[in-house]
Amino acid sequence: MPTLSKIPETPEETEAAFYEAISRADVDAVMSLWAEDDDIVCIHPGAPRLVGHSSIRAAWESIFEKGGVHIRPVQLHVTQNMMTSVHNIIEEVHRTVSRQQDIHILATNVYMKTPRGWRIVTHHASVVPGEAPADASVSTLLH
Amino acid sequence: MPTLSKIPETPEETEAAFYEAISRADVDAVMSLWAEDDDIVCIHPGAPRLVGHSSIRAAWESIFEKGGVHIRPVQLHVTQNMMTSVHNIIEEVHRTVSRQQDIHILATNVYMKTPRGWRIVTHHASVVPGEAPADASVSTLLH
Repeated sequence: MPTLSKIPETPEETEAAFYEAISRADVDAVMSLWAEDDDIVCIHPGAPRLVGHSSIRAAWESIFEKGGVHIRPVQLHVTQNMMTSVHNIIEEVHRTVSRQQDIHILATNVYMKTPRGWRIVTHHASVVPGEAPADASVSTLLH
Repeated sequence: MPTLSKIPETPEETEAAFYEAISRADVDAVMSLWAEDDDIVCIHPGAPRLVGHSSIRAAWESIFEKGGVHIRPVQLHVTQNMMTSVHNIIEEVHRTVSRQQDIHILATNVYMKTPRGWRIVTHHASVVPGEAPADASVSTLLH
């Protein structure tokens, strides 16, 4: 298992390191941020569920064959307690060639506090038709 | 806010009550299972993110206009600590008319322990093309 150069002391630090490692296509760094648990789950948009380190690692390696992916997590909503932080975000994906305006990507990232810092236990990303809503209107769209 | 007839003492109890309430199209029962937190998140398959009780309630009311939905959560994977339980499942949706064989639905349900029992903080469901994998092969598909 890859080791971390620095133990992440907050969920925010883990999340920042996660997206930074994805942008660098650094699979060792990405995998070092996950909890040491056989039931960790990773779901890429429109793709089947991956369970456990080896499946999750293989999928990131496949994604990184085309290089890193620049993702900016925005419109964060958090529910948390002392040991867990649940982040829901919109993933702004920046592509060099073209940008799809007719979809957006939502992600749920769950972090748990472990003896080796805050680690990812779930990354669930999915595609939603339509542009991302403006920040302020998110919680009032259906009123 | 709707009150619970019985405080759910385990995440499993909350999950069972959640899908049972959905099958009965009982919006009060569904909403009584969520944490009392403004940042609770509900994502229905292919739909925009909903944040907070009133948005989430309005969407369930809209779904229930056509009656209850019979969902059997299967192939559960859990990561948990003392205060939080993260469930990832495949939702087997049983429709009376026809059943779509070419997609399946994945859901991440996060439960947190509160003074009023285990409550939902996140329900993130999304569609995946293709049939659901057979149970045993889930974690070995990409090897």
